[in-house]
Amino acid sequence: MKEVIDFIDSNYERYLDELKEFLRIPSISTLPEHSRDMQTAAEFVAAKLKDAGMNKVEIFQTEGHPLVYAEWLGAPGKPTVLIYGHYDVQPVDPIELWESPPFEPTIKGDNIYARGATDDKGQMFVHIKSVEAYFKTYGSLPLNVKFIIEGEEEIGSSNLTSFLKNNVELLKADAVLISDTSLYDVGVPTITYGLRGLAYMEVEVVGPNRDLHSGTYGGAVPNPINILAEMIAKLKDKDAKITITGFYKDVLKLTKEERQNFKALKFSEKEFARSIGIKKSVGEKGYSVLERIWARPTLDCNGIVGGFTGQGAKTVIPSKASAKISMRLVPNQDPKKIEKLFTKYIKQIAPDYVNVKVTSIHGGYPVLAPLDHKATKAAARAMSKAFGKKTIFMREGGSIPIVVDFANRLKACPVLMGLGLDSENLHSPNEHFNLNHFKLGIKSSAYFLDEFSRV
Amino acid sequence: MKEVIDFIDSNYERYLDELKEFLRIPSISTLPEHSRDMQTAAEFVAAKLKDAGMNKVEIFQTEGHPLVYAEWLGAPGKPTVLIYGHYDVQPVDPIELWESPPFEPTIKGDNIYARGATDDKGQMFVHIKSVEAYFKTYGSLPLNVKFIIEGEEEIGSSNLTSFLKNNVELLKADAVLISDTSLYDVGVPTITYGLRGLAYMEVEVVGPNRDLHSGTYGGAVPNPINILAEMIAKLKDKDAKITITGFYKDVLKLTKEERQNFKALKFSEKEFARSIGIKKSVGEKGYSVLERIWARPTLDCNGIVGGFTGQGAKTVIPSKASAKISMRLVPNQDPKKIEKLFTKYIKQIAPDYVNVKVTSIHGGYPVLAPLDHKATKAAARAMSKAFGKKTIFMREGGSIPIVVDFANRLKACPVLMGLGLDSENLHSPNEHFNLNHFKLGIKSSAYFLDEFSRV
Repeated sequence: MKEVIDFIDSNYERYLDELKEFLRIPSISTLPEHSRDMQTAAEFVAAKLKDAGMNKVEIFQTEGHPLVYAEWLGAPGKPTVLIYGHYDVQPVDPIELWESPPFEPTIKGDNIYARGATDDKGQMFVHIKSVEAYFKTYGSLPLNVKFIIEGEEEIGSSNLTSFLKNNVELLKADAVLISDTSLYDVGVPTITYGLRGLAYMEVEVVGPNRDLHSGTYGGAVPNPINILAEMIAKLKDKDAKITITGFYKDVLKLTKEERQNFKALKFSEKEFARSIGIKKSVGEKGYSVLERIWARPTLDCNGIVGGFTGQGAKTVIPSKASAKISMRLVPNQDPKKIEKLFTKYIKQIAPDYVNVKVTSIHGGYPVLAPLDHKATKAAARAMSKAFGKKTIFMREGGSIPIVVDFANRLKACPVLMGLGLDSENLHSPNEHFNLNHFKLGIKSSAYFLDEFSRV
Repeated sequence: MKEVIDFIDSNYERYLDELKEFLRIPSISTLPEHSRDMQTAAEFVAAKLKDAGMNKVEIFQTEGHPLVYAEWLGAPGKPTVLIYGHYDVQPVDPIELWESPPFEPTIKGDNIYARGATDDKGQMFVHIKSVEAYFKTYGSLPLNVKFIIEGEEEIGSSNLTSFLKNNVELLKADAVLISDTSLYDVGVPTITYGLRGLAYMEVEVVGPNRDLHSGTYGGAVPNPINILAEMIAKLKDKDAKITITGFYKDVLKLTKEERQNFKALKFSEKEFARSIGIKKSVGEKGYSVLERIWARPTLDCNGIVGGFTGQGAKTVIPSKASAKISMRLVPNQDPKKIEKLFTKYIKQIAPDYVNVKVTSIHGGYPVLAPLDHKATKAAARAMSKAFGKKTIFMREGGSIPIVVDFANRLKACPVLMGLGLDSENLHSPNEHFNLNHFKLGIKSSAYFLDEFSRV
């Protein structure tokens, strides 16, 4: 391995030049005027994969932007890893807030500034370079490697989703390696092993068949806002436990090890509260902030509207009111099942003198990569070697739908080897990527190929 | 009295012609292009008061439309009645829905159709004609009479309100006679003796200092929508009693007589529910629908808003949410006091980890004319004589701010001798007024002058 690591060190300046070249391509997936740039970016990725040594490289056209596929299957009997990333980037508005042009990569201090630097060109490029270092050093890889790089992550991954559905055999792997999340902190090697799922619902309450004058009718008719409020209040108890019957039934409990891992992290609840302007953090009784955010299911109203919402007064009893209510789910909750439980409970607590409509707007499965999976352990060892520190394990409160699809369709263990930082302005002006993490990422990736080949 | 009633019968055709002339004046107070019509209507009223025999008639110019004042104080030692009405009318849109031109009075069956027919020209004109009948028959009135007729009732009465404040002595009276409400039903003589008041509040809950991603933060931060909903749910108990401490303290209980009066009215709770498309009426335990609407205080959310309210899904925990919450008040509740109790209670039930702002938007006092007041009794006897039926007593759920001002500033008993019907399309196309009620109204008014002079 020493030779590979040395190769990375001595070729680093060239990697940086190539990354800059990649970042100069304005591959904004959502803007039609950039469709040619999308093709250019896909061709750049394909060329770099070919240069690296991947022996089968193919660009698949889709109804949207192209997918880049590559494989090297020269290690029969050894595990197969699928490496995922995306070459598309977010738009750059508001352009006037950029301190350097978004598609003219600029190095300041430890960081390289450009749209896509951390999300996801810089993070994804790491793996192409680790594969190259291996090939250039030993002429082969220690295990089988596939790449699938898409150009539509920022607009919903719909073409990759259907490609995945139709090409399970092509993409089949034991693990899916993804660098599109964050490190817990600067220089802290981190594996994200859990993502929450989602069940997003809408509840509409209809009372009278028209808006009524609150003087003439107030006191004798069901008010849909009051009733909706009462129903929302019944969704949690005083300990912030969700009261929907059966809601927690499938929740995988945090293990002792996980709770200890979270507890060991440098985290200040005070600083967390201060950063978002709240007096104190609140939530489900019996759990820490990190546990609540990463590993416990939640319920939040995301929106509510009914009646008169302008300036001043209008004495109306509205005909209807509605709320968006979503639940973040954790392994092994099933969004389809939760939708049903939610709907049933809402119907049960709704008074019989109003009409209540419950609609499912959107759902997604949670993901959990077992901490004791060989791929997870190999990744942790790899990052520890590269960073020279013990790898920490965290979860994330949000969802990454494509990760769920990989895990479910391919039965592959997701390995989220995030190399970004939450502070790197992804989706905002002055996006940047820490170049120390870029170099340590290439080494982490190389170590992972070695570690995972040995299991 | 027989002579007065005979006079009314034999002059009825002329009264009708005069009413038509009045209705032809397009005195729409809210439209600036009708300001000359407002002057014309005021002059018409003043002329008719002079013709009737009132010996001091004056038009007071205001910052808006003129006020018409008249007095005859030739009965020293006798009570004084102030008669109030308004000569302004609502706009006529949508004009295409009128079956006859709004300012060309048209008689069809028992009704006269025109804008202002029932609200309030027809109802108000009744009293000018009863005074005329008296003067023409006996050469004098049996008690002292004042008139104050405004041209801004449909736009908030602000100039009358300040005139009243500055002219208490001029307007001083023992009773204020007003015909600007409704009969309970066709041909049913009705006195409205109670109006509800209002305290209209706004509550804003602020949690985090910005909108947050519900994946990243959900579970550990206070959600202002959920908290607002929980607070609203705490404003009433399961019997729909309002839980604000001290809220019912000053509520004047319905007397046995009142409850019996209401019970005796022809009223179908089923039909009431059907008419507004609800399965059943609901409200405070232990009270009938009419009691709840007319004589019990209520609390209703008039509007609520927070977070994402568009189509589809946005996984946001909003920074804030707010609701408009109003309470209808009954005698002897004081809106200023209720505002304070509401604010105190809200602050008390608000969790200490959010910021809650309570604002008073608008308030108004309730009114109750004592059933045993001489003016109330005289009015009931008068209507019974004219209609040939027992007068019923009802209340109304809404507010009429100017009535409160009269009652409070002049310490005069309000007598709401409504002659309209809720079905007469006031404020809508094809407004009309039942001419039987017009004639019976003139007689009721004349009987009232007689009855009230004897007390």
